[in-house]
Amino acid sequence: MSQSIITLTSDFGLQDHYVSAMKAVMLGIAPEARLLDVSHEIPAHDIMAGAWVTKNSSFLYPPNTVHLVVVDPGVGTSRNAVALRIDDQYYVGPDNGIFSLLTGDDNYEAVNLTNPDYWRSDRSTTFHGRDIFAPVAAHLSRGVELYDLGKPIEQLVTYRWAMPISDKDGLQGWVIHIDRFGNLVTNLSRELIEETVGDNDYKIYIGNTILEEIVETFGSVEEGDPAAIIGSSGMLEITINKGSAASLLGVQKGAQISIVVQKDEDDT
Amino acid sequence: MSQSIITLTSDFGLQDHYVSAMKAVMLGIAPEARLLDVSHEIPAHDIMAGAWVTKNSSFLYPPNTVHLVVVDPGVGTSRNAVALRIDDQYYVGPDNGIFSLLTGDDNYEAVNLTNPDYWRSDRSTTFHGRDIFAPVAAHLSRGVELYDLGKPIEQLVTYRWAMPISDKDGLQGWVIHIDRFGNLVTNLSRELIEETVGDNDYKIYIGNTILEEIVETFGSVEEGDPAAIIGSSGMLEITINKGSAASLLGVQKGAQISIVVQKDEDDT
Amino acid sequence: MSQSIITLTSDFGLQDHYVSAMKAVMLGIAPEARLLDVSHEIPAHDIMAGAWVTKNSSFLYPPNTVHLVVVDPGVGTSRNAVALRIDDQYYVGPDNGIFSLLTGDDNYEAVNLTNPDYWRSDRSTTFHGRDIFAPVAAHLSRGVELYDLGKPIEQLVTYRWAMPISDKDGLQGWVIHIDRFGNLVTNLSRELIEETVGDNDYKIYIGNTILEEIVETFGSVEEGDPAAIIGSSGMLEITINKGSAASLLGVQKGAQISIVVQKDEDDT
Repeated sequence: MSQSIITLTSDFGLQDHYVSAMKAVMLGIAPEARLLDVSHEIPAHDIMAGAWVTKNSSFLYPPNTVHLVVVDPGVGTSRNAVALRIDDQYYVGPDNGIFSLLTGDDNYEAVNLTNPDYWRSDRSTTFHGRDIFAPVAAHLSRGVELYDLGKPIEQLVTYRWAMPISDKDGLQGWVIHIDRFGNLVTNLSRELIEETVGDNDYKIYIGNTILEEIVETFGSVEEGDPAAIIGSSGMLEITINKGSAASLLGVQKGAQISIVVQKDEDDT
Repeated sequence: MSQSIITLTSDFGLQDHYVSAMKAVMLGIAPEARLLDVSHEIPAHDIMAGAWVTKNSSFLYPPNTVHLVVVDPGVGTSRNAVALRIDDQYYVGPDNGIFSLLTGDDNYEAVNLTNPDYWRSDRSTTFHGRDIFAPVAAHLSRGVELYDLGKPIEQLVTYRWAMPISDKDGLQGWVIHIDRFGNLVTNLSRELIEETVGDNDYKIYIGNTILEEIVETFGSVEEGDPAAIIGSSGMLEITINKGSAASLLGVQKGAQISIVVQKDEDDT
Repeated sequence: MSQSIITLTSDFGLQDHYVSAMKAVMLGIAPEARLLDVSHEIPAHDIMAGAWVTKNSSFLYPPNTVHLVVVDPGVGTSRNAVALRIDDQYYVGPDNGIFSLLTGDDNYEAVNLTNPDYWRSDRSTTFHGRDIFAPVAAHLSRGVELYDLGKPIEQLVTYRWAMPISDKDGLQGWVIHIDRFGNLVTNLSRELIEETVGDNDYKIYIGNTILEEIVETFGSVEEGDPAAIIGSSGMLEITINKGSAASLLGVQKGAQISIVVQKDEDDT
């Protein structure tokens, strides 16, 4: 690894010194590492938002990239600090569910960060980003072995994300993310929808709107009209052409979305 | 080009994974490229703001820098995707007017991005930043020729920016940008003003204020007082020493500014 | 210095072209320099906030890092532009108190930036970040000597930060920073508190709350409860476990905090 990449994701914002302190510590250990900001605008303590952002871009990075992900409301308590490998990517952060959207039953190897040799010698109880996670990420990027960092753990904490419910009549899901443009991202994937709906007609109910088809893109409908599309993450999104679906449909994160299959008369 | 630079400008904000996804894709193609964020805080869909930011810093970069500029409300519709060269700088983005402040009658070479060899193989209809623009920018930075990316086009879309109006009595222009400090940037350039006003006295009318001279800098007037200056972009700006001109003068983007020449009695 | 680091701190925000212009200028002079954003979200003209962020991360960087710090409400007036060295770190910015939290009586060497050989040839009166500070920082990072940049100066401007007051009955200090999480950072250091309080009991008065001990971390108290901790910067902070102390205690920057020592009856 002559030139390693470390990405940074946090809820630290950029008006404080927190992000800079993590970068400084990493450059002290791994001077050649390339530091790339993913986002520091994760809403404070919003583990779900941090997990969503991490899921949707980390897999695109070159092999052996290290992803430092610090949304850590439980810093200083008994929550574990962990590092893991999934496919050819590494992740470092608190074991509080932040990796829940990435980890399946057995697609990962993880360790509990128990080896202080790879921590900062001067440690606080409130800023493990600077004192534990950043130095561990820097050491990983330099080729330190995952299992040198601590003891293997079998099962990471899993946040019980709102999983969609499906039966023969349709699907029920939730808005799990609202992006900057007000697009409503749901937890209904293209595959799940196709499987459930088959060749039948269907109606999509969300907020004060009913939609009857999934179209190609925002611009497939008139300006100001809502559209259901499969977004760039492969999930159903409700959008408004050149407008904010969140504002105009009055929908917030966590809102319910239903797809009801319209069966033929013969079937009833 | 042993070490190439790619700058990123977008309206994606930093709370989503969009910017990170573009960076990941570029590093996969051009691992040595230096990625520099210009701004991801362009207001959503505000092509004019994106054009202004791009105009004012891109020309300062070292030769062969590639500027990725994605403010793309029409993604997935029939708008073209383009790459262009102006002097020694390259630009990649949607053909929706975003380059209007840079392109003159014949100062650029441009191509329509029609060659999918330089796109991401897995493509969405809603995220051309990740799937078309980012990979094209990365290939350009590695030395791919402009004309390999697609077919030449003669005329880019030009957004009809509010052009100033001038006659023998003076000038009328508009506030085209309000910066973070509340400074009101107008479309009246130093050259145009000097040409119109000559040696005569003049009055500047904006919002609820009349100013009678252009001073050196913010601090040339008392704290809290408004001043007309030639800003760092070479355009007339209305500022308030240690205050926000936008708030205190009640002026918004698009507001009118007039310069009226005060002719000698003899001339009337 | 084969690979030098330049950090950037400013109140420019990221919706304008100001930060990009500084980066472009620096890369023109020092193409190999690594540019790291510390923060551009310092509140406009808030020298105290810029000083706080600079103090808390700059010392963590590798030797010979150059810190470009531009919070410059007096740009274009008679305030000096300076460069200084403290230990193995370099700093460049306006002489307006922005370095007050770093400089002691004689821990620094400083020069007034009077040598235009190291400035941009095309200069404005309103954007010294681009025209003076950025090029000077780039030249410093390439090994130009501090004393080549201008004439030595003995005494930098010192902002009179609210210093804590102490007597035998206790301490009085102020909230000097509120971070993104609403944590209230005070100007009472761990050392000063230990020295003043000794083995006695004490009460901490802030906003509408009284606290009777300093605990280990946020999570040492119940969710929603306030806690006094020594933060990661070594200063007393008032926090709320998973909440915003600023909102819930109704406290703003500048608010007073008192520690009153509870003496034994025998002592009275």
